[in-house]
Formats: sequence, structure tokens, C-alpha cells
Amino acid sequence: MRPSSSPSDGLLSGLSGTPDVDAELGDPALLRALLDGEAALARAGADAGVLPGSAADAIVARCRPERYDPVALGRAADAAGNPVVPLVRELTAAVPAPARPWVHLGATSQDILDTALSLVAVRALGPLLRHLDAAVDAAARLAATHRDTVLVGRTLGQQAAPTTFGLKAAGWSTGLAQARDRLRQAGAGQPAQLGGAVGTLAALGPAGPRVAERFAARLGLPASPLPWHTCRQPRLDLTAALGAALAATGKVALDVGLLAQTEIGEVAEGGTGRGGSSAMPHKRNPVDSILIGAAARRGPGLVATLFGAVVQEHERSAGGWHAEWEPLCELLHLAGGAAGRCARLLAGLQVRPERMRANLDATGGLVLAEAVAARLAPAVGRSAAHDLVTRAAAAPSFRAALLADPEIRAHLSEAQLDEALDPHRWLGSAGPLVDRALAAVRGAGR
Amino acid sequence: MRPSSSPSDGLLSGLSGTPDVDAELGDPALLRALLDGEAALARAGADAGVLPGSAADAIVARCRPERYDPVALGRAADAAGNPVVPLVRELTAAVPAPARPWVHLGATSQDILDTALSLVAVRALGPLLRHLDAAVDAAARLAATHRDTVLVGRTLGQQAAPTTFGLKAAGWSTGLAQARDRLRQAGAGQPAQLGGAVGTLAALGPAGPRVAERFAARLGLPASPLPWHTCRQPRLDLTAALGAALAATGKVALDVGLLAQTEIGEVAEGGTGRGGSSAMPHKRNPVDSILIGAAARRGPGLVATLFGAVVQEHERSAGGWHAEWEPLCELLHLAGGAAGRCARLLAGLQVRPERMRANLDATGGLVLAEAVAARLAPAVGRSAAHDLVTRAAAAPSFRAALLADPEIRAHLSEAQLDEALDPHRWLGSAGPLVDRALAAVRGAGR
Amino acid sequence: MRPSSSPSDGLLSGLSGTPDVDAELGDPALLRALLDGEAALARAGADAGVLPGSAADAIVARCRPERYDPVALGRAADAAGNPVVPLVRELTAAVPAPARPWVHLGATSQDILDTALSLVAVRALGPLLRHLDAAVDAAARLAATHRDTVLVGRTLGQQAAPTTFGLKAAGWSTGLAQARDRLRQAGAGQPAQLGGAVGTLAALGPAGPRVAERFAARLGLPASPLPWHTCRQPRLDLTAALGAALAATGKVALDVGLLAQTEIGEVAEGGTGRGGSSAMPHKRNPVDSILIGAAARRGPGLVATLFGAVVQEHERSAGGWHAEWEPLCELLHLAGGAAGRCARLLAGLQVRPERMRANLDATGGLVLAEAVAARLAPAVGRSAAHDLVTRAAAAPSFRAALLADPEIRAHLSEAQLDEALDPHRWLGSAGPLVDRALAAVRGAGR
Amino acid sequence: MRPSSSPSDGLLSGLSGTPDVDAELGDPALLRALLDGEAALARAGADAGVLPGSAADAIVARCRPERYDPVALGRAADAAGNPVVPLVRELTAAVPAPARPWVHLGATSQDILDTALSLVAVRALGPLLRHLDAAVDAAARLAATHRDTVLVGRTLGQQAAPTTFGLKAAGWSTGLAQARDRLRQAGAGQPAQLGGAVGTLAALGPAGPRVAERFAARLGLPASPLPWHTCRQPRLDLTAALGAALAATGKVALDVGLLAQTEIGEVAEGGTGRGGSSAMPHKRNPVDSILIGAAARRGPGLVATLFGAVVQEHERSAGGWHAEWEPLCELLHLAGGAAGRCARLLAGLQVRPERMRANLDATGGLVLAEAVAARLAPAVGRSAAHDLVTRAAAAPSFRAALLADPEIRAHLSEAQLDEALDPHRWLGSAGPLVDRALAAVRGAGR
Repeated sequence: MRPSSSPSDGLLSGLSGTPDVDAELGDPALLRALLDGEAALARAGADAGVLPGSAADAIVARCRPERYDPVALGRAADAAGNPVVPLVRELTAAVPAPARPWVHLGATSQDILDTALSLVAVRALGPLLRHLDAAVDAAARLAATHRDTVLVGRTLGQQAAPTTFGLKAAGWSTGLAQARDRLRQAGAGQPAQLGGAVGTLAALGPAGPRVAERFAARLGLPASPLPWHTCRQPRLDLTAALGAALAATGKVALDVGLLAQTEIGEVAEGGTGRGGSSAMPHKRNPVDSILIGAAARRGPGLVATLFGAVVQEHERSAGGWHAEWEPLCELLHLAGGAAGRCARLLAGLQVRPERMRANLDATGGLVLAEAVAARLAPAVGRSAAHDLVTRAAAAPSFRAALLADPEIRAHLSEAQLDEALDPHRWLGSAGPLVDRALAAVRGAGR
Repeated sequence: MRPSSSPSDGLLSGLSGTPDVDAELGDPALLRALLDGEAALARAGADAGVLPGSAADAIVARCRPERYDPVALGRAADAAGNPVVPLVRELTAAVPAPARPWVHLGATSQDILDTALSLVAVRALGPLLRHLDAAVDAAARLAATHRDTVLVGRTLGQQAAPTTFGLKAAGWSTGLAQARDRLRQAGAGQPAQLGGAVGTLAALGPAGPRVAERFAARLGLPASPLPWHTCRQPRLDLTAALGAALAATGKVALDVGLLAQTEIGEVAEGGTGRGGSSAMPHKRNPVDSILIGAAARRGPGLVATLFGAVVQEHERSAGGWHAEWEPLCELLHLAGGAAGRCARLLAGLQVRPERMRANLDATGGLVLAEAVAARLAPAVGRSAAHDLVTRAAAAPSFRAALLADPEIRAHLSEAQLDEALDPHRWLGSAGPLVDRALAAVRGAGR
Repeated sequence: MRPSSSPSDGLLSGLSGTPDVDAELGDPALLRALLDGEAALARAGADAGVLPGSAADAIVARCRPERYDPVALGRAADAAGNPVVPLVRELTAAVPAPARPWVHLGATSQDILDTALSLVAVRALGPLLRHLDAAVDAAARLAATHRDTVLVGRTLGQQAAPTTFGLKAAGWSTGLAQARDRLRQAGAGQPAQLGGAVGTLAALGPAGPRVAERFAARLGLPASPLPWHTCRQPRLDLTAALGAALAATGKVALDVGLLAQTEIGEVAEGGTGRGGSSAMPHKRNPVDSILIGAAARRGPGLVATLFGAVVQEHERSAGGWHAEWEPLCELLHLAGGAAGRCARLLAGLQVRPERMRANLDATGGLVLAEAVAARLAPAVGRSAAHDLVTRAAAAPSFRAALLADPEIRAHLSEAQLDEALDPHRWLGSAGPLVDRALAAVRGAGR
Repeated sequence: MRPSSSPSDGLLSGLSGTPDVDAELGDPALLRALLDGEAALARAGADAGVLPGSAADAIVARCRPERYDPVALGRAADAAGNPVVPLVRELTAAVPAPARPWVHLGATSQDILDTALSLVAVRALGPLLRHLDAAVDAAARLAATHRDTVLVGRTLGQQAAPTTFGLKAAGWSTGLAQARDRLRQAGAGQPAQLGGAVGTLAALGPAGPRVAERFAARLGLPASPLPWHTCRQPRLDLTAALGAALAATGKVALDVGLLAQTEIGEVAEGGTGRGGSSAMPHKRNPVDSILIGAAARRGPGLVATLFGAVVQEHERSAGGWHAEWEPLCELLHLAGGAAGRCARLLAGLQVRPERMRANLDATGGLVLAEAVAARLAPAVGRSAAHDLVTRAAAAPSFRAALLADPEIRAHLSEAQLDEALDPHRWLGSAGPLVDRALAAVRGAGR
């Protein structure tokens, strides 16, 4: 649901968005984009010689948002089914009589609305991509700083084996970078739309394709080979990329929220004065990860709506494109909010290596059971090694049980056992994998 | 995304909503509901003797929405993760010092937000259910008026056999009435929420359950047996009912849109001056059915979001309830818009019995092939009858081929054939079914 | 996607289902339901006098699933768009010639398919509801046993304040019971379908309504006032209830998974030999909660599909009902699997009160900060109390800081402070709430 | 829900799939892919020198699907939470003792399952992409053949203005080609997975990255820079592309279904003996478009499930990857069925230019109102032209009214009016647009 002004001014919607992205999504921004479309259409027509340059000038001069009232236009839109019809009526009334016949020449309402939403998307993606870039970088810095900081890897909710916080952060950075790259590409592929009533450009005569090409060029948008009134792949590309951005930020938020649990405490969100509770003086809630998580939960439903809405009949659909408008803006809003919060969260994240080590040690080396078994396997066989270690793992103290087991001690000295129980020696390729990931995300993208 | 004021004032959101429902959904309405919650909490505490009546009076006096700025509250909410924290801070500052300790007593932010959204839902359902009632009635009137108006029934996109417009409209009325009944029931089941920090009502001491009961009673909402911070069945009931309302209105819109196709033309939307096209002077688009259809396409994604969001961990969730707020309001907004437009559409629908009859006749009786076969079956067997009729159906003129076929004519006279080809004689139980449906929808509900 | 036999025999699908529910969902079960429909139709026709009793007998005798090959029927269905057309063809061929004209009399394919899926749903709900009953009971037993077992309540991922495991389990039981009640009600509302080609019952003449009534009665299903070919509220009721069952079991699984984290360890799944890892000898994964969680994640998408699919045009839809079949069966399959695993999980859950207490104590009483502030508030005012406690909460030892603070000690003795820090004294109404919930779930339902 | 054998053998699932794609999706195909993974792992280990070549040979020799029983494995999977654990147990038992320690070396269950699903996807995409290629080609042939076949363009459900069937088919071809290109690219990006327990490759020592690289190479899959256990962008790429393929085929099916309506009749599905109705001898249902449409309606819900499931915590998730398996296979199944039917539908489509022309003419030239206004505009101004034409459009005969209007006749002769009313002269750039689209789809892709 589009608010009258920026969605970031809402009592709830500020919590799901971020001001700079939302500034491109409110009604003023949409109105500007619609008028940019009408202005570019006039200019393109003049470029192609189908209307006088003076008429184009006159039209362009009236394509200024402050001349129009979005609330009144919104109400007038009800009778037409879209806001372009009343906007064109008002624009036509505003231009001098000689220029009136040239307003909206050759276009249908959907041409202007589709084009405006491409513009809105491109403009909102500016700050959105900057937030994602910042998040990628912040995660990469964490990965570099903590390349060798040991923490316990957790699988299926259980402590499993050692890994590094660097590898975890490298995974965040990689996931964010992949989503960002899709989003950048999708943004660059949002075309201008010009087809006229049924996509033949009939009202422009033979100049149609030339006008369409100039129209796109004037707006800095790619031209589409065919009018895409009911051929909506570009919108699916954008939808999927926004959904992916929400998923990638949601992954970070999910991990941070879990690592910040009181009992785990391996990270905490930064930010003074954030997350306090009026009732519980001791509490600090990981607000950014919570709000990112909330946004991420809302992505898939909107993605589904858009994947469903794009199946549109005939030359222009009854209801299909109408169903796209708000969900697309909503996805941009949510992805913007999630990206902005994710960049802030990662930049300020407090990392606690000592808690990581303490948690790793809390099970008395059990998370190195696989390492011990691997040391035993060459001597006793993999299966027997597994059984010996499983037996020791059931005892109250794993290390003591290992030391006390003659079958194990026949092959491993205490020093060898302690080596096996050293998490730093069971990190596999964590370090090189971090290096590789950092090279990739730092080399890529921009 | 919640707008600052009523969503019906938006450039696009007016097209998916309707003013009277939207008036209950904007930020002013939410702010009022939040303050109603704080006021009721103070009154309930006084009722139960946990705070002085004078403190309650002082608090209630400051629970007036015009004292607070939703935009400022929305911005301040970012640090807390919800707007209740800054609102309580401002409310506390606004009351005289002696009353301050009693503000928000025993409640957690989620108590107030959950309760406020129950209030918002109940208030929005007022006009929403009135629109659905009007739509049910309008469809019932169409069914009564056109109880015996013949049109061709269409199955799998093809003309199939005769039915009546009355039966079609009775189906609309029944579907709308079923959805309305679910919605009325779900609305009545949206409870107040009061559990305190972790749902034990600890800060209220032994008076907790009594305060919770008074709190609900003061607000006119049902009390819940347990705090339902992470036990969200009431929200699923509401979600499903709103989704069903969108589906039921979407069914009407889909049928109307198809019947209004130029080539079919059996109905048209009423409403002077609606649906015009700037480019095509002859055109009148069925705007209401289009916009209802667009709203209906957006229902399932939001339903999915809410069914996913309600799976919430522990005593109160990190992100789950946050993910509910805007989608729930959005569903109310969309169902309101669809219901309002559906009532208007049905009340003004232009029905064209002559086009219905012409379309029915256009295939020269082919849609009565089953009727002819049924007349033949007793004589020649069902299978042979089917084959004889299929053969005739392949000829250029069905009636002529039937008349010319000696195997058929051995059993059926021309008069009998023409009786078989009379659609009025192949309506089965359409009339009684309409009567039954009208009795049901007119007897039910309110 | 329906498998040839029971879905529980699949390499993956066994992990999302449970054998007894799945036995009602495979192709053999569907074939049986389709034939039950044809048999009941013949019997109902005979009851109403539209076909000879001997023909009905002959038809019923051939409505035995073992006579038909589901694989061959499935392949033959491709040309017709549904499996009823080839099944009727084969059934007709199988009955003696005199009975052939009476096979499928008055019905359209959708009548039989809709009815069969109502039967399938009702039959699958038998074991499914038994699993939910068992889960409700097991959770209630946990609540009764642990009515006064203290654990820390967690909100927004953080330790917040004490509660009881009994209250947590009472919430599970209540949530499961609410979902079960909706599901039982929805199951009882799945009607038989009989409308003929376009819903007028034309081919049955004046006996139509009587046949429809007998048809439903013969099958033990409710009759619908109107044919509901494109008026699908009963399916939405079932869909929403299945989605709710997945959400309620998903809530239990989410909590169990989090409580079973290595660092928390307050519960563990029972079940010998489950959850082992080949690579990590020490590990035991909470398999049931994982698989329930996986099923729960798949619910909302299927719910959305069905809420979208029910918007169906005209008398019978091109594609809408087709889109319902498999998602509806899939939801039954997933809810069955989740319910079965949830009952098992709850019945065998290992509860560790000592870990609960240890985790509660781990923050040195910080989770009782609200309790301490509440004790101070009457003396110093609520705001000052909050500030004093917040200051102490920032110190390394909360209790020591409280004891050392003269402003606090002026009002609270060491004994009073320790009382305030006793979690058992800050449980509010947890006990009575458990009692109330148990009375409700034990009194309800069946 | 995966069936035991090919999903195309199901009573219902054959209607949503197509045999050649489904052959890659059933349990036999998955079992083969899992074993291919284990075999490649052994070979890769030998390549990197971490296990003896003889052990690899022995393992590979036992990685043959016919040695294992998927039903038994499926049942055994319940205790482990995935089928890899019992499969590895059986495989280990099957190899000679000396090779046993080397089975599954360095891998975790998810490595094998993720890799197997990449293989399944790539294999299923083979026939799926061939179907899409065929559909693109068939649509392109229709576009070429009917480059200049006039039909009426329809917007918002209403006849709007002339266009060509060639342009419509060019739009289909373009949409299908765009989806196909995304799908081909996504298929090529499904990586092998090898990370070990927590993604560090610890059990492989320093050879880890080398083994991972050889593993991917042996399988012909791309290697991932990092293990992607919880970094699932490749799956989102595939999901979005499958959803897009369903949308593109759904668009074709929607148009065909609408154009095939009895009252419009501009196209019909080919295919002898398809779409018959047992009850209605005259009827032929557009079965392929119906079943494609049903599949397309199921896409968005599954897309949402996967976009939600990929948000996975820590090193490997509890439930997230489990939730991906069946929905991903289901999407492949549905997209396969839709692509196969779409290719068949387009290849056999019966096009009826005479009905197209008749429908275009049915409104007496009204659909050329814009053209007439365009001819008048230079003389009287655009606004006056619009008004004059609107007035004539309200008369019973548009042409007669135009001819009778002196204000119009002052500027246009009868011949000029008839030129304006000739649809062939108001096709704008339809022809060149078709040419451009054909050049693009024919030059692209493969």
C-alpha cells in the first residue's frame, strides 16, 4: 500500500524500510516518474519528428510534480483504474492549447506506468545497492579480521566441529555479494515501455520504433525489442533479485540473532541506546537482526504474488499489471530496509572471541570427536575408530575417557590426543577458503 | 506498508482500497488503537485495585491521539523495534508525576500492539462486513430477478449446456455469504492480549488474571485463556477469512470480466463515466472487476506470509510478530477495497438477457446435444445415442443433421427434437436451487 | 505430486509424511475414492428411482479398485485432462451391457473428483486427528508434570524473566488443540459434489436434488446446498486448518529445536538410535523437530496455491480445480507427517529441569531485574527504581552490585533482595494459567 | 512429494508432468544421483591422493542403483533425517572391507544430497529445455506464418484495436525464449557441494580444496568458491528460472484458452481425440492449455517456499535444506509438464484467420475509432476529433454515423473514412516488430 509521502514516515513502515530508499518509493517519487515519462515521450516524439519541438518544450515545462496533487489524482484514478488517465487529463489542461494534441501521443496508460515503475526501481536501487555494497564490505572486513578466530560450527542446531568466524563472515559476504550482483543486473534490465494501445505503436505511424528508442534513451533505460505489456520477464528478474537480497540479509540476521542469544553471546549488535526494554532493565534486544528477519519473512509472499501476477492475457491485461504495482514497491521497500539495517548491523557488530572459545570448549572436546577418530582410523580402521570414540563420547569427560581407554592409548599418546583435541588443528581449509572468498567479493561487482 | 494517513489517499493505494475501511487502517487509526489499549490497561488496573483510580484517570486523559505525532513516533520506533516503546515514553512524560509509575503497568510492548491490531481489525471489519452484506444482497437480488433468465453454462472455457443467470448469481451470493460468515466469526474472535514480559503476568502479582479480564472487557474484545504471544491461531482465523473474502469477490470479478468481453457482452458494469480510455473513444473497461481481480491476486501471497509468520519461538518472538503487522493491515485494506467495489459492481450490474440468449443460440443447439442424447437413450441405449448425436454435432447445422438422420427420426419427431433443443427444458433443477440458495443467504448471517 | 503407491514409500517423501496418513493419499486410495463415488452415484440413483436397482448392483460390483490399473488410467488421463474420463470408460466396459447406460449417470468428471477428494481428506484426517490428539495430550502431560518447573522465558531471542516449562507446554497444547478443532470442523464440512455438466443436475430431471442428497448420504458426507464447482469455501476451510496444524506443530518443533541447542540443552528428543551422524560420533540431531520444521516451512506456499486456485470462472473452471488436487493432497501429507512426528516428539521428550535452572541462574539474577525494580518502586518510584536496577545490571555481579548500593539497601534488606532474586517468586500467574489451559484442552474437543 | 517411481505414472501427477522430464525426477533417478555423488567423491579422493585408487574402484563398482532398494532406504531415512545416512551405511557394507574406511570420505550428508539434486536438476533440464526450445520454435513459426494475419487486440478484456496474430505469437516466442535463457543459465550454475561437517573440509586435510575441485569436475558440475551449505543463491536462480518458465508457458496457455472460447473461436488445440467430454458430445476442451494453466498456478507457491527455505542458519541448517528437496523437484516436474504440453500445443495449434477477421469486424469498425480520430486530429484538433468520434461510436452503426456527420465529412471523404476503417492500415509497426522478434529468438539461445 503506497503512502502519500515517504513510507519511512509511517508508524510501522519505518521499521521495515530505510529513509533513502523509501524516498524513491512514496507518492511524490512515483508522480515524478510518471511525469518524467510524459516528458520523455514528448521529447522522443520531437526527436523523431512526430511532434513540434515547441510542443515538446511546452509539455516538458508542465511535467513538474509540484504542479499536481497526488491525493486528488489518486481519488480521480478510481474511475479510470489507474492514475495515468487523470494525470494526462490534468497535464493536457495545463499545457497551452497548441501543445495539447501532442500530450501522451502514441502512448497508453500502461506505457507510462510501466516506464515509471522502471524508473522508480532504478532510482530506489541506487541507495539500496549502496547499502548492499556496504554490507558486503563490512562482512568482508569481519572475515579478514577474524580469519583465524575459532568458533564452533553448528549444524542442525547442534555444536558440530570447529570452524572460524572468518569463514562464517566470508559466507555472509559472498551471499550478499551474489544477491547484489543479481540485483544490479536486474536493475540494469528494467526497460522503458512504449507500445500504444495494443503494442503496435499504431498511433505513431512508421516513426513508432524510432520514438520508442528515443523514449528509452531519453530516460536512460534500456529499450525492449518488443513492447512487453504482457511479456514480463524483466519484472521477474527484479522480483527474484529483490527476494534474493532479502534472503541474503535474512541469513545474516538469523545467524546474528542466534549467536546473540543470551546463552551463546558470541556477538552483539552495536549501536548505543538501541534495543532497550522498558520492562526489563537488563535487556538489549538485537533490534536490527529482528527487523531484518521480519522483512525477510515477508519477501517470499510478495515474490509469489509477482510471479503469479505476470501471467497476463492478450495484449494488455485486466488486473495483472495492476496487481504488480504495490507488491513491487513493497519489495523494494523491504529489501531497502533490510539492506540498510544489514550494513549497519555488520559495521557495528561486536564480536566476542572469548565467548566463542568458551562455547567451543564447553563440551570438553566432544566437537573434536571426528578429529580424534580421524587420527585413530589409519591404525584401527575407520569403523573401529568411530566406535571407540563414540564410547568415549558417552562418558562424563571425553578427554579423560580417551586417555583411559587402552585401545586408544595403544595408538595415541597424550600429546597426540591433545593435538587432536586442539580446535586450531581441525580447521581444514577454513583459512584458504576465506582468502578465496575475500578475493572474489573484493574483485567483483562494482 | 502503512501510510501516514489513510491509505485511500495514495496515488495507487486508493485503487486497492476503499475509503471507509482505509480510514480504520492508517496511522491515525493505529495510534488511536494503541492509546485505547494503554487507557484500557489503566482502567483495568484500577478496576482490579492495582493502581489508584486517580492515576487511571490521569493516564486516560492523555491517551488522545491528537497529542502525539505519528511521524516522530515512527522514527523513534527504529531504536526500539516497535512504536510502543516511544509512545509509552511520551505518554509517561505527559502524565502528572504521581501517575507516571502506573503507565503501561504490567504490560509488554507486544501486549499493546497485539491488542491494538485486534482493535484495528474489528473496526475495519465494520465497514468491510457492511460492504460484503451489500454484495450478498445485490447478488441475491440479481438471482431473484433472473431466476429464469437462460444463459449458456461454460465449462473449461467452452459453452457446455444451458443454465440460468439466476443460478450463477445465486452462486456468487452464496460464496460471498460464506466468506462473510467466516469473517464475522473471525472478527469476533480477535482477543485482547495481556501477558507481560514472558506471559506470566508477573508484574501484576496475583491480580494478573483479573486485570487481563477487565482489560479485554473494557475494550469489548474477547479475553484469551492464555496469553497468545506465540500462539497465534486467532490471527490465522482472520487471515484465512480475509483471504476467503478476496477469493469470493475475485470469483465475481472474474465472471463479470469474462461475461463483459466484447464478444460475449452478457453483462456490463454500471457507473457513468467509469472505465473510459483516453486513446480509444469506443472503449469502456470493466474497472471494478479489474481492480477486484488485482486485489484478489494479491491475497494468497499475504495469506502465505501470515501463515509463515505465526510460527514464533519461545515466549515472544524475534521478528515473527513484527512480520505480521503490515501484511495483516494490507489484507484488511485489500479485502475492504474488493468488498466495496464488489458491492458497487453487483448493485449496478447491467444484465443483457438478449445477448445471453443470442450466445446460447450461436452454436445452433449444440449445447443441447446432451439433452438430445438423453431423449434418444431410452430407445437406442445411452452409448448409441451418444454416437448418433456426436455424428450430428459434426455437421454444419446440428438441427438439420438431427432432422435428416433416419436413425434419430425413427425415435424422435421434429416437435420432440425441437423440444429437446429448447434450452428452457434442459435447466434441470436450476430454479429450485436458486430458491434454496436465496432462502439460505437471506435467512443467514446478520 | 502423487506417487503411484503410498507416498511414505518414497526416498524423500517418507521424511515429510507418516505411513498411516499417507496410506490414504496414494493412488490406490484415490482410485478407491473415485470408485466409491461412482458406486454411491449408482446407489443414489436407484434410491431415487432414476435407475434400476439391478443396474446399481452391477455397477457397484465393478467399483473395486483391484480391477483397475492406476498407471494405465494415469496415462489415459492425459487426453481428457482428468482420470475420471478413462475410469468411467473402463467401468462402463466392465459392467454388463444392460447396466452400461446407467454408469456415471447425471455426473460430470468434476463431481466424481471433488467428491473423491472430500473422501480422501476425511479418510486421511482420521489418523491425522489421532496424531494431533496424541500431541495435545502429550503436551498437556508435560504441562501437568512440569507445572512448577522453572525455566527462563526468552523474548526476542534473549533471556527475559522466569516462567515455567509447564506454561510453555500448556501453550503448545493449547495451540495444537485449537488447530485440531479447526481441522475436525473443516473435515466435517467437506461435501459431496453432484451438479452435472453445468451444476443444474439437468440429466437427472426432477430427481436431481434427491439424487444429490442420497449421494452424499451414501458416502457419509454432508450435502452442499448448491453445487460448489466454482464456489470453493469448503476447500479453503480445509486448507486453512491444515496450514494451522502445520503452524502449531511447527511452533513446538521450533521451540524444541532451540531448547535442544547444545549450549541450552534444556530438552532432548527421545528415541533410541535416532539423529546419529556418521561423521560426528558425539552428535545427536533433533530429527523430529527438524523434519516437522521442514514440513511447516512448506505449508504457507501450498496454502497460497490453494487460496489462489479457488478463484474459478463460470460454471466449471479451466485449470482451477486441476490446480487444487495435488496441493491439497500434499498439505494432508505434510500435516500428517508433522502431526505424527509431533506426537512422537512430545511423548518422548526428555526434559532437563537442572539445565533449565542452570541457564536461568547463568546471568546471576539479571533476569529478575524487573522483580527487583518492582520491589523498589513503591519506595522510590518506578522510574528511579528502574534506573537503580539498570545501574546494578551493568556491574559484573548483579547481586553484589545490588547489595552494595546504599540507595537500594535503604529500602531492601539482603533477605528481601534474595527473595526478589528467587525466580519462584516471580512467576506471576504461571501456575493458574497452566491449570486453566489444561482444563480447557482436556475438556474440549473429542 | 516424490513418488517411488516416475511421477508420470501417477493417477494425477501424470497430468502435471511429462514423461521424459519425470524420468529424471523419480526415486530411481535420485538414487542414481546420490550414488553418482558417492562414486565421484571416491574418484576425486583418489585423484587427489587421499585414498587408494583400488578403494575408489571398489566403491565405484558398488555405486549402482540396482543394488539398493529405495523403499527400504526411504524408511530407514526416518531415523537419520535424510536418506544419505542409510545409503552410506549400505554402501559401506557392500564394499570389501579394505575399502570401507574410504566410503563417503570427507563428506557430510548434505554434500551428497545437494550435489545429487544439482545432478537431478541438470538431468531434468535436458528434456525440459528441449521442450522449451521446441515451444520457442513453434511460436516463432506461427509468428512467421501469420505475420500479417489481422486479429483484434484485446486490452482489459475488451476489443481495443487491430494487431496481428504474428505479433501475438512473436510475444509468446520471445517470452518463452527469455525464460529458457534464464533456465539454461541457472542450470549451468548448479554447483557440486563439498564442505564436510561444517564447511571447512577438515576431514580431507590440506587436500580438501583439490578434492572438491576434482569432485565437481568428475560430475561435470561447476565448483563453488565456498561450500554453499547455507549460502543458497544457486538454488534461488534455478527456482526463479523455473518459475519464469511456468509463467511464460502459462501466458501462452491463458491466451490460447481465451482465444479458444466458443464465442471467440480464433484458435483451437490440435490433437485428435483429446479433450472430449463423456457427457457433452459436442465439446472439445482445450486440455493442454488447461493443464499448463493448472501447473502455472502452482508455480508461485513453490517459488515462495524455496525463497523462504533458503534462509538457513549457521553452518548447516535444521530444516531449511530439508524443506527444499521436494519443492525443487516439484517445480522441475511442473515446469517440465508445462513445457512439454506448451510445445505440443503450439506445434499443433489450429489458427482461424476468418474467425479473427469476423470478430474484428463484429463491432462495425469501432475498434478503429482511434484510427479515425487520428485522421481527423490534424484538421480539427485532437480533442475535438476524440469527441466527434466518441459521438459516432455511440450510434448503432459507427460507419453510418461517421458518414452522416457533417463535421467529420467536412474533412474526410467516404473513401478516406473507409481507409481509416481498414484494420490493415492501422497495424502500426506490427510487421517490423515481428521481424525483429524473430531475428532475436532465432539468433539467440542455443
